[in-house]
Amino acid sequence: MRGDAGSASPGTRMKQILVLGAGKSAPCLIHDLLDGAAAGRWRLTVADLDPRAAEEAVGGRPGGRATAFDIHDPLQIRREFAGADLVVSMLAPAFQGPVAEACLEHGCHLVTVSYTDARLRALHDRAGERGLLFLGELGLDPGIDLMSAAQMLRRIRGEGGRVRAFRSYGGGVPAPESIDNPFRYAITWNPGNIARAGAAGALYREGGRTLAVPAHRVFEHTWPVEVAGLGRMEAYPNRDSLEYLSTFHLEDVGTMIRATLRWPGFAETWQPLVRLGLTDDRLRLPGLQGRCWRELTEMFLPPTTAGADLPARLACLLGLSPTGGILERLAWLGLFSERPLDPDAHTAAAQLTRLLVDKLVLAPGARDLVTLVHEFEVEDPAGGRYRHEATLVQRGEAGGFTAMARTVGLPAAIAARLILEERITCRGVAIPVLPEIYEPILAELAAVGIAFEEAVHPLPADRG
Amino acid sequence: MRGDAGSASPGTRMKQILVLGAGKSAPCLIHDLLDGAAAGRWRLTVADLDPRAAEEAVGGRPGGRATAFDIHDPLQIRREFAGADLVVSMLAPAFQGPVAEACLEHGCHLVTVSYTDARLRALHDRAGERGLLFLGELGLDPGIDLMSAAQMLRRIRGEGGRVRAFRSYGGGVPAPESIDNPFRYAITWNPGNIARAGAAGALYREGGRTLAVPAHRVFEHTWPVEVAGLGRMEAYPNRDSLEYLSTFHLEDVGTMIRATLRWPGFAETWQPLVRLGLTDDRLRLPGLQGRCWRELTEMFLPPTTAGADLPARLACLLGLSPTGGILERLAWLGLFSERPLDPDAHTAAAQLTRLLVDKLVLAPGARDLVTLVHEFEVEDPAGGRYRHEATLVQRGEAGGFTAMARTVGLPAAIAARLILEERITCRGVAIPVLPEIYEPILAELAAVGIAFEEAVHPLPADRG
Repeated sequence: MRGDAGSASPGTRMKQILVLGAGKSAPCLIHDLLDGAAAGRWRLTVADLDPRAAEEAVGGRPGGRATAFDIHDPLQIRREFAGADLVVSMLAPAFQGPVAEACLEHGCHLVTVSYTDARLRALHDRAGERGLLFLGELGLDPGIDLMSAAQMLRRIRGEGGRVRAFRSYGGGVPAPESIDNPFRYAITWNPGNIARAGAAGALYREGGRTLAVPAHRVFEHTWPVEVAGLGRMEAYPNRDSLEYLSTFHLEDVGTMIRATLRWPGFAETWQPLVRLGLTDDRLRLPGLQGRCWRELTEMFLPPTTAGADLPARLACLLGLSPTGGILERLAWLGLFSERPLDPDAHTAAAQLTRLLVDKLVLAPGARDLVTLVHEFEVEDPAGGRYRHEATLVQRGEAGGFTAMARTVGLPAAIAARLILEERITCRGVAIPVLPEIYEPILAELAAVGIAFEEAVHPLPADRG
Repeated sequence: MRGDAGSASPGTRMKQILVLGAGKSAPCLIHDLLDGAAAGRWRLTVADLDPRAAEEAVGGRPGGRATAFDIHDPLQIRREFAGADLVVSMLAPAFQGPVAEACLEHGCHLVTVSYTDARLRALHDRAGERGLLFLGELGLDPGIDLMSAAQMLRRIRGEGGRVRAFRSYGGGVPAPESIDNPFRYAITWNPGNIARAGAAGALYREGGRTLAVPAHRVFEHTWPVEVAGLGRMEAYPNRDSLEYLSTFHLEDVGTMIRATLRWPGFAETWQPLVRLGLTDDRLRLPGLQGRCWRELTEMFLPPTTAGADLPARLACLLGLSPTGGILERLAWLGLFSERPLDPDAHTAAAQLTRLLVDKLVLAPGARDLVTLVHEFEVEDPAGGRYRHEATLVQRGEAGGFTAMARTVGLPAAIAARLILEERITCRGVAIPVLPEIYEPILAELAAVGIAFEEAVHPLPADRG
């Protein structure tokens, strides 16, 4: 059966795949899995809170079915999970636990594109006992970054190299020719996550020092990075980089950094939103009905007796130039405007998300770009020191899939297929740093043009 | 049976009270309930993770029993809750949900001194159906503040007054003659809560405006308050004041503020700890074994190439004078010291808590002080405007109970007794803003000298 287990031979029940979520990152995943469904290799159900989004994603193609789905409804969970062999979840990270528990109950494998959380990891033994694989972190970042780093590390070690430093960068931004707003940014993934970026703070190691960055200082804590073929970008530290020390067996490394890339100037404009409190998702703000953005911004300014105008008072509070570019960009976003608030959004973060979704749009015909960069500093057996660099740059197709949808969706789609075909056979909870998982997936990605450019540069012997 | 239901008459099973937690705020509560146990009115069990703390609290008095107790152990929950009629929980707020669920399962009334949370409130109907009362917010603040405010409001309204503004302040600090550290503060309650102060951010209303303060700006957002008999203190906003608008039927009021009081200068010294990240309880810091405080502080400073010393770099990062009083106080606390870190504390907040417990001690023989201040701006039926003020100041007894232990513990002890005596008969989840609850408790508190001084001042007619 190997390599063919997913096909429907006579007497074999056809396999069922359930995709949860038909949002921004999902269309390429669904398109790829629909190809297999149309070829009679499995049946595919696409489930979304919004049934029209699911229908649009399926587009009436053979072997595909769209359905309305609410993860909070136990009856709907039973209905959709009971017949499924494998679930691909594109839902927000908060739903990872409930989805995994439903998979365990109904005996489905699971593939997700989000960071694995404690609730998912706690199911390792029980998933293994039921013969199930719960494979997380299988999108772009986390996903392709982890797979490519694991593959590079294996090769470096195979050549006797010792890693002294590992820096890994990733980001999704508009392509240079498609930048058309002063944030130099466009939303190409789950908008609900954008206001929460940095909210967990960050940890990393550099030159032997552990660095901790609390949530309210993440966007103050940036440095420039030169990306081959793209030029200078800015980096801010991404969550807990140190969790990956053990993943990659790099406990003794002096530098370990995972960071997010944006076009320069994003962070200096975003940090005032954080400082002011507009990314807060805990305070439930009352009485927003019938109010406008100017009034929301006003809520976050200390009381004042002076009659200065709102932008000037905000500039004064945060130490910004009242006539500078940062304040101009915040005005462009709409912080001081009469734009009505969304009556269904009850926190500042939720209101900000609505605003960003409207303002930071990838225009029709515009192209996005994703990039991943790995830098390993390596000592070879003879004592020579080298920097191994690998760079992935992918551009979206104007009018087609975004680079984000392609690079988040394809790894998950390939993994789903490999699991059904029993070419990935490990069980329990895993992330894709095992050769059994990453080798076939990276090979298939390379075959469709998603591959890294690599380079090796000698380093001066005294560099730390 | 009314008024006598707790006593052990022949043929009546003696009532059982279970107190969870024998920490800083608990000794007066336990002492008071032990008086009732010694008089044969009920039996008392004091349960703490640390059995010695429980034994010390019971002190071998008749009718009392001490036991080791871990809220995470279902067997221990069953053993202690099964025979109890009423549980008083002094545990940290995080355990409120599990304690309440155990009370529901085993049919015990519950009294807590913490803010009620969503998990507790969700049990309202089920507690009511089982004939149980889960009474939260029954300490000092929340507790005496709510009861006294509800009583004042009822009287003001009975006289036809309309409330235009309500400001309520509370705090526990060292008495002026007992201030002996540069923070002018001493820990007299659950130390685990101190590093989390402000972590939920704050919401309030002033002059018709809603003000939102994110967590990282709460200690920047202070104002002076004159307290009768004590002089000037500083106030910072306490959590979500607007939750109490409906509690007190004050939806139309122009100003609604609940705030915390400290001696002036506390906030300017605390805010740099927040800014730096030392109050963060989310990032799990690795490799703290064998390290010292200087190294922990270093983790939160951005990388630097310059060789400037640690205090100067911290001052530079946070915009503090490198030779000023704030930096001097942070040095006094130990941020730049060789003091060893606690190997069992895994977040900055946990390490900071250990440091504060050692440094901000109420010295033997020193006295603490708690204060509550209510200010109501009231319009009377004739259109006259008045400020109704009520001030409670309580000092601890040198060598006896702290004012904090007395004012947190006595309301809960009195409530426990009134519930067992069936003099409080409401059911479900409640906070003490019903006359049935607050009238007898405030009367008993007044009888032992815990009472407010009141004053009424006319206001100019044009004051808003």
